[in-house]
Amino acid sequence: MPSAKKKRVAVRSKSPYADLAKELREIAVLSSVGSVIGWDQETMMPDRGAALRAEQREAISGLVHVRRTSRKLGDLISASESWAKRSGDAKVLANLREVRRDYDRATKLPASLVAEITRCASLGMEAWKDARKNSDFKKFLPWLKKTMDLAREKARCYGIPKPTRGAPKPEVYDALLDEYEPDMTAARTDAIFGPLRERLVPMIESVAGSRSKPSEAPARVRLPIDKQKEFVRRVCGAIGFQFESGRMDESAHPFCEGIGPGDTRMTNRYRADGWTDALGTAMHESGHAMYEQGLPKDECFGQPLAEAISLGIHESQSRMWENLVGRSRAFWKWGRGEARQVFGDSVGRASADDLYKAVNLIRPNFIRVESDELTYNLHIMLRFDLERAMINGSMNPRDLPEVWNRRLKNDFGLTVPDDRRGCLQDVHWSAGLVGYFPTYTFGNLYAAQFWEAMARDLPKRDSLIERGEFGPILAWLRKNIHAHGRRYSAEDLCKRVTGKPLTHDALLRHLESKVRNVYG
Amino acid sequence: MPSAKKKRVAVRSKSPYADLAKELREIAVLSSVGSVIGWDQETMMPDRGAALRAEQREAISGLVHVRRTSRKLGDLISASESWAKRSGDAKVLANLREVRRDYDRATKLPASLVAEITRCASLGMEAWKDARKNSDFKKFLPWLKKTMDLAREKARCYGIPKPTRGAPKPEVYDALLDEYEPDMTAARTDAIFGPLRERLVPMIESVAGSRSKPSEAPARVRLPIDKQKEFVRRVCGAIGFQFESGRMDESAHPFCEGIGPGDTRMTNRYRADGWTDALGTAMHESGHAMYEQGLPKDECFGQPLAEAISLGIHESQSRMWENLVGRSRAFWKWGRGEARQVFGDSVGRASADDLYKAVNLIRPNFIRVESDELTYNLHIMLRFDLERAMINGSMNPRDLPEVWNRRLKNDFGLTVPDDRRGCLQDVHWSAGLVGYFPTYTFGNLYAAQFWEAMARDLPKRDSLIERGEFGPILAWLRKNIHAHGRRYSAEDLCKRVTGKPLTHDALLRHLESKVRNVYG
Repeated sequence: MPSAKKKRVAVRSKSPYADLAKELREIAVLSSVGSVIGWDQETMMPDRGAALRAEQREAISGLVHVRRTSRKLGDLISASESWAKRSGDAKVLANLREVRRDYDRATKLPASLVAEITRCASLGMEAWKDARKNSDFKKFLPWLKKTMDLAREKARCYGIPKPTRGAPKPEVYDALLDEYEPDMTAARTDAIFGPLRERLVPMIESVAGSRSKPSEAPARVRLPIDKQKEFVRRVCGAIGFQFESGRMDESAHPFCEGIGPGDTRMTNRYRADGWTDALGTAMHESGHAMYEQGLPKDECFGQPLAEAISLGIHESQSRMWENLVGRSRAFWKWGRGEARQVFGDSVGRASADDLYKAVNLIRPNFIRVESDELTYNLHIMLRFDLERAMINGSMNPRDLPEVWNRRLKNDFGLTVPDDRRGCLQDVHWSAGLVGYFPTYTFGNLYAAQFWEAMARDLPKRDSLIERGEFGPILAWLRKNIHAHGRRYSAEDLCKRVTGKPLTHDALLRHLESKVRNVYG
Repeated sequence: MPSAKKKRVAVRSKSPYADLAKELREIAVLSSVGSVIGWDQETMMPDRGAALRAEQREAISGLVHVRRTSRKLGDLISASESWAKRSGDAKVLANLREVRRDYDRATKLPASLVAEITRCASLGMEAWKDARKNSDFKKFLPWLKKTMDLAREKARCYGIPKPTRGAPKPEVYDALLDEYEPDMTAARTDAIFGPLRERLVPMIESVAGSRSKPSEAPARVRLPIDKQKEFVRRVCGAIGFQFESGRMDESAHPFCEGIGPGDTRMTNRYRADGWTDALGTAMHESGHAMYEQGLPKDECFGQPLAEAISLGIHESQSRMWENLVGRSRAFWKWGRGEARQVFGDSVGRASADDLYKAVNLIRPNFIRVESDELTYNLHIMLRFDLERAMINGSMNPRDLPEVWNRRLKNDFGLTVPDDRRGCLQDVHWSAGLVGYFPTYTFGNLYAAQFWEAMARDLPKRDSLIERGEFGPILAWLRKNIHAHGRRYSAEDLCKRVTGKPLTHDALLRHLESKVRNVYG
């Protein structure tokens, strides 16, 4: 009879680094449970399950926080650092550099401040919803002030970076930006955004004055939602999303969640007259998802080597598939045929060129998320300038609507009708996310610069795309970007891959050529 | 500026009982996270997510186990018991009686035995899958032996109940049964199953010899799966499943998961020629789900007062909706019209009576899960007798196929062609579930006895059903069964609701009348 004797085998680990990897994996597993229930909340959960779900998420994130800030983890990191110095393995050292960064950041915020920030985000979001609904900025103002105050306090806890000789003076905002885009600074952002803005503003004016008016009609054909879903799945599968390791569902706001090894989920939304919007969103989320699927999670889940570098790099993957692939002429030479196979003659009359133009119209819009590829960046620059000004105290939150509207007039040529469609449109500030906005345009910038570098390795890229052969593109991204995880900083990766630091040049070239092709 | 001062407010609780409720709720919240990811695994998870999911589930169940067996919980229970003696509140005392029961059981098993059982279930399940596939009992035999040995050891840890004067001598099996059907014993089961079996065996013979052969054809019409889903949702909504607090999805093996307040999920499966099977399964799972939705979880989630009494009582709810409602003539008078509205003329030629008969054919089947309402119970009795004999040592697991096949011949009139369709058909023993099978027939027995009691309060029940008015039936179940949670034991509840202890009479009356109605 196989009895169940008590056995206690002393497990002797190979190294503190192996113990650290085990601890990090356990934390990541727990955290990934939070991802599953977060995904479920947006896609599957019945309405009345919301109260329980809030308790569940709080329980899991509490457990994760305790372990991410534990003394035990700190000791394992220190022991691993000593151990690694002797090994001298560059990959191990890079991994530990990032583990240390995460731990130090996690332990720098006092629990009381975290609680205050959480509370402000929760109540502030309710106030914002109400303010936006009624286009009543005053209702949101106290929360906006408080959000900026708490962000400043958070920045102080993280610590303002030390001044470097020859570099611009560090500012409070840097510590906030660093949370989403490590090592990036406000000054550097300014230096990249500035010249880009100078060129984009006149481009928008010239498009507005252009006599060429391509038709949007092919993108507005009404098509059955189930057919749209079929089409979108087909394209996502073709570009390389692995459905056996993921899902695509529906949610009010599309998102991608890299739950863990073998499980990456994205969502989309559909409108009868928006089949190309659904496609764009699906390709965007697939870009995020394929990055997640390409990170070496099978080998080292929970370690920085299997994590995304920054929001900017993550966004570069989504923007590349959405804009540089999905809005290209080559793509539509293939995509039109695919669309015909699914939708039949309903989209049949439009040529590849008609479709290409229809998805590339440039029309300044009040609303960021409805903006074209060009105007979008002006929206981001506006938000970056204003949040930076509010953080460093050069602008009073009270003046937000006025400054916002003036800029919309100057840069976009638009008169903002109300704050609902102006400074109250985005959720970010109400959620306490300050320093987040610039990463969207970093994504566009990195994408364009990577895209040019890729062209050197794949000179026949356009004809590949025309034939629907996306494998070499994904393989290039896997090898040059995904496989590294957080081994290199975003800036270092950029230099390795493109041979130069991030600049506005590639994106500008891309946008100029786009305007030329669409508007002549 | 709202600063984040550290505040430590000493929370003074109202009573140890309130603290206990809080602790139990926290444990239940954590456990419910396990339910969500368990549900997700069966319905949504991509194939390659399986390895991570195993780690996630182990992590959560480990955390739950630690808290369910903690010293802290034990102390809170003891303090609450002293406190409650003074209050004398019957509901509180009942709640604590069950909390104590759970805690004592959870702390009685040594971790090493739990690990051994888990390992045996995991490896045994793989061996069983292989054995079943090849119809090779010998491959499963070592695991079956080990399963029975471990079950016996588990029973010893739980402790065999003390002999009661006048009652039959307690046996090892009782401690196993008690896990699924508290307070039930093998002797009592025998006393109920015995006379039932004596009557069912000749009934099956008489049906086999009957000249009346109702047609199964109306149940085998091929209908589109999406229409079947629409029909099934319609019926589940009509009988009272609250979709705003739940979901119905698909999975290989249908199940119901009561995740927590506001979130109860069930699944179904579909076959083109099995629309009434899909309906039966949906009504079955709805029965489970409506019990979950009817438990007072909003008030006391995590406490026994908001939990199901036993598997038998749970099963009584599913069997009642599946068999006593869904296989009744009255139901089909309404159901035929509903079916016509969804399916159109494809089911239109069958009369309500044709449909009633088609879903009530009695044909002994080798396979338990494909058996009719009558034969099903003989399958359960067979398994109960054999697992009991293996546990008390009166039968050697080696002899299982021989004994199994002999009984199938005697009771069912069937010659078992191979062990795959014989003693290897069920997953239960390979999963370590010994003492579980009888609860299926307890469900049928309780359902029939409750159904007769309900008839006294709802004399016009048949005409309600014919009009599709199921509200009064559900309201009766809510009030008499669901609302109590585990306040009363199954047997006590049965006496309260029906005026007498559980017997075979009501089920026998129901089955006899069914045979009369269908076979004349």
